[in-house]
Amino acid sequence: MKPTHIEHVGIAVASLEEAIPFYEKVLGLTCYAIEEVKEQKVKTAFFQVGQTKIELLESTDPEGPVGKFVEKNGGGMHHIAFAVDNVQEAIDQAAAAGCRLIDKTPRDGAEGLRIAFLHPASTCRVLTELCGKP
Amino acid sequence: MKPTHIEHVGIAVASLEEAIPFYEKVLGLTCYAIEEVKEQKVKTAFFQVGQTKIELLESTDPEGPVGKFVEKNGGGMHHIAFAVDNVQEAIDQAAAAGCRLIDKTPRDGAEGLRIAFLHPASTCRVLTELCGKP
Repeated sequence: MKPTHIEHVGIAVASLEEAIPFYEKVLGLTCYAIEEVKEQKVKTAFFQVGQTKIELLESTDPEGPVGKFVEKNGGGMHHIAFAVDNVQEAIDQAAAAGCRLIDKTPRDGAEGLRIAFLHPASTCRVLTELCGKP
Repeated sequence: MKPTHIEHVGIAVASLEEAIPFYEKVLGLTCYAIEEVKEQKVKTAFFQVGQTKIELLESTDPEGPVGKFVEKNGGGMHHIAFAVDNVQEAIDQAAAAGCRLIDKTPRDGAEGLRIAFLHPASTCRVLTELCGKP
């Protein structure tokens, strides 16, 4: 595997409406899209910074993974996503290197990307996503 | 303020020796430097991914900020650093926009950069660093 760049950093927030002004008014970034990802029970807001996006995540369901994370921590950095050319190949290589997986095959993520998560037990407690174009 | 890119993502780990193999053997990145930052009571390991670095942080003192973080959470994503052209100017702009600061003037960080932290109370609980060349 050879990630080309960090595709995005996922940040869980209690409320997009409260969080977006920090990224726009303080950091000077621009929210260019708000998208609901029903499968992951979140509403997302995106900001581009160089090669990387900030993906703010607001839970749409207290029982969803981000809802539980915000309940426990009040929000914060949630996951990091590395861009790879071929997600299935990257997952297979991670597994072959002894890494535990959450997803054995890619699934649909935000912005039309194919995504897969590695298991935090194998990644020093950092929820790590691999993602790439379909 | 207009950050050009994400300079690095700081990840707290219990042990660099245990964490580096995940980034090298699973993700295929290369650790190009290990550096102690005495002021912050950490030993750091760096990996370049596109424009951004992964900065692994191992505490050298249980009473230091990273030591306390690892004690509480067992490690995980710790902070995000945005590259700006002029750190002092960026801090001043953040303060003028109502952001609480940890550092009112830049201090020395790893890799010879000047750095300043914004306060998590103003950043939706994400420890946010601004950094730039001296």
